[in-house]
Amino acid sequence: MNQDAPTNRTQVARLPKRGDYSEATIYSILDAGFLCHVGFVVDGQPFVIPTGYGRLGNTFYLHGSAASRMLRTLAMGVEVCVTVTLLDGLVLARSAFHHSMNYRSVVLFGTATLVESSEEKTTALRAISEQIVPGRWDDVRWPTEQELKATKVLALPISEASAKVRTGPPLDDEEDYSLKVWAGVLPFHVQTGVPLPDPRLPVDVDDVPGYLLDYGKRPI
Amino acid sequence: MNQDAPTNRTQVARLPKRGDYSEATIYSILDAGFLCHVGFVVDGQPFVIPTGYGRLGNTFYLHGSAASRMLRTLAMGVEVCVTVTLLDGLVLARSAFHHSMNYRSVVLFGTATLVESSEEKTTALRAISEQIVPGRWDDVRWPTEQELKATKVLALPISEASAKVRTGPPLDDEEDYSLKVWAGVLPFHVQTGVPLPDPRLPVDVDDVPGYLLDYGKRPI
Repeated sequence: MNQDAPTNRTQVARLPKRGDYSEATIYSILDAGFLCHVGFVVDGQPFVIPTGYGRLGNTFYLHGSAASRMLRTLAMGVEVCVTVTLLDGLVLARSAFHHSMNYRSVVLFGTATLVESSEEKTTALRAISEQIVPGRWDDVRWPTEQELKATKVLALPISEASAKVRTGPPLDDEEDYSLKVWAGVLPFHVQTGVPLPDPRLPVDVDDVPGYLLDYGKRPI
Repeated sequence: MNQDAPTNRTQVARLPKRGDYSEATIYSILDAGFLCHVGFVVDGQPFVIPTGYGRLGNTFYLHGSAASRMLRTLAMGVEVCVTVTLLDGLVLARSAFHHSMNYRSVVLFGTATLVESSEEKTTALRAISEQIVPGRWDDVRWPTEQELKATKVLALPISEASAKVRTGPPLDDEEDYSLKVWAGVLPFHVQTGVPLPDPRLPVDVDDVPGYLLDYGKRPI
């Protein structure tokens, strides 16, 4: 990243003390997630679409079908806003008014460019795969030239971004602290269940890979 | 809802067989979540902001500080796109190309209106609170007139929406089924941790409410 101060559009408007523009914070939040919400505009109409992503250095990669309306629109170089949100807990105050959430989020602005070379496309797809399931890429059949042609990959520079973070207990009005209301934080985390084998898995392929069994132990 | 067919903007563009325009599906997804991503446009620039919500009948409620840029913008009646995404699992195919996710999502379009009356505001805030933590509202101090004035509530009719759902195992190319690659689904669900009491909780308020202990047992 080549910024360390907010721009007009990354300046955190509400509760600016929760804003953070450091590369370390922004990268750590992006690296802890893999699902983003992509905002773009078509004829004045906003669209918000959820999709997976990968970060590699200073580049944020998106991918999808070459037929995807979202990717075809972004490839035209329109303004995009990508938001990554990690929910860490519900903040339960004594008053309804002071309820909140603990979270880490990143908002990223810019314009994306189409990745053309098969080599960079493969590198990007690997980054997205590793972001979602570390360890998976080396186990699977890699994309053929035909599959690469059917896939659009977009690169968005991480050059104009902001993070917003809330942590800690509720902050109540002073006179409410004496109320007999339980207050605190209900922590949230993503839990993975028992891996469900594909019904068509051959009988001799019954070992669930370690990276799936250990998935929930990843730092988030 | 007064629709049961897609409009130009709700028509699911990619993989239309995953699209669903029924009220039952859309409401059930909205009711299972509480966090949405709100997309809006300011001077041609898209913004995507995460926030809590509540559904009451045919109305989708958002709230926040009266000073919020997002709420002030939406209150002007601009076009908005709200997306709710529930991630149910990672779909692990034999080929990198056919990896996917199981999810339920809703995309909702329209324009929001400001809720003016204290009565409807309180009803909406209660709906949002109950959507996030069912049972909490009756335990806490309710908003004062002054707090209601400091809070903006927006109502968005649920009249133009689409759901998109993927379930089930991976779908690989026929010739890949014989590969010795574990394939299947890694289920995801949200897990709550042990509630963390506020350090300033009086010693005689030590009972964690049942609705927090049972939170993870809610159907999602």
